[in-house]
Amino acid sequence: MTKFCSECGSAEIVQRVPEGDQHLRAVCDNCGFIHYVNPKIVAGCLLTWNGKILLAKRAIEPRKGYWTLPAGFMELQESTAEAAARECWEEALARPIDIELMGVTSLPHIGQVYMMYHGTLADGEYGVGEESSDVELFAPEDIPWKQLSFPVVHFTLKRYISGEMSVYDEVIDRQTDWLTKGA
Amino acid sequence: MTKFCSECGSAEIVQRVPEGDQHLRAVCDNCGFIHYVNPKIVAGCLLTWNGKILLAKRAIEPRKGYWTLPAGFMELQESTAEAAARECWEEALARPIDIELMGVTSLPHIGQVYMMYHGTLADGEYGVGEESSDVELFAPEDIPWKQLSFPVVHFTLKRYISGEMSVYDEVIDRQTDWLTKGA
Repeated sequence: MTKFCSECGSAEIVQRVPEGDQHLRAVCDNCGFIHYVNPKIVAGCLLTWNGKILLAKRAIEPRKGYWTLPAGFMELQESTAEAAARECWEEALARPIDIELMGVTSLPHIGQVYMMYHGTLADGEYGVGEESSDVELFAPEDIPWKQLSFPVVHFTLKRYISGEMSVYDEVIDRQTDWLTKGA
Repeated sequence: MTKFCSECGSAEIVQRVPEGDQHLRAVCDNCGFIHYVNPKIVAGCLLTWNGKILLAKRAIEPRKGYWTLPAGFMELQESTAEAAARECWEEALARPIDIELMGVTSLPHIGQVYMMYHGTLADGEYGVGEESSDVELFAPEDIPWKQLSFPVVHFTLKRYISGEMSVYDEVIDRQTDWLTKGA
């Protein structure tokens, strides 16, 4: 939530629908600057090696200690695929090759859009990146379903293991009971 | 560019790589708040009716007066498909049905990711929305190729007309000579 105007420093921030707009925005009553907030893209990869899937255990909140697919916020001046590959290196010291888009998942309740790729490790090598406390390859039957970080990770793993490879466009619109359902 | 801290109002904004980060950020030297800036999603639709494609003439900059596909910045609390459908209404008073993801185009040089859908008009009706000065259905052979708004619009139209319907993942990384190439 914007408390001060990023353009003039004023604290006169009001929630208002600007002229010609349809949405409430944080508008500066002093200088008129409109502070737009838009959804963020999270890009990541499901990487395999000899039939096993690479997972990283989160060393940071949220969901510290839970297993996740390497993924993170896309940065400026990169493509979605470049963002996904970068996250593999940062979180799991893994170099991906031949990555392809698996699909898109909108999470409207938290303003995020996940773009997940699949591919393989370039050389079978990986390690523990800065935001991880452990990184391992899991056979599909050994996936720690009850220790996964987020519903979208659960969905992506299920989708991949199902063998359905068409590009999906999904919505996860609230916290579900996925954590208690396990596999 | 952030001039004042949105958290404390200080003007002591410096460009710095925060601890544990790999990217330059606008950091407040007074309170430590980090101002992240991430790519924005633009969602839109290629809508057809009786084999013709709906285009809107832009009434606002950039590219005022040029023809475009209904598309715009995704908002919080909606899915990418909902954003695409909303833009059809706002720009062309068009109600889409059966929309499906065509593909994703990253534009790293301007920090945007386009998510384009295709579908049909629900009832053949459309009109001139607030951000448009004209809205028309064009047969493929009548598309005004030299009066299109953006390279990504050109790409999306070409792709649709080619009949290749697999979901794409493209990058347009700079201004090209597309405007002079025409069809």
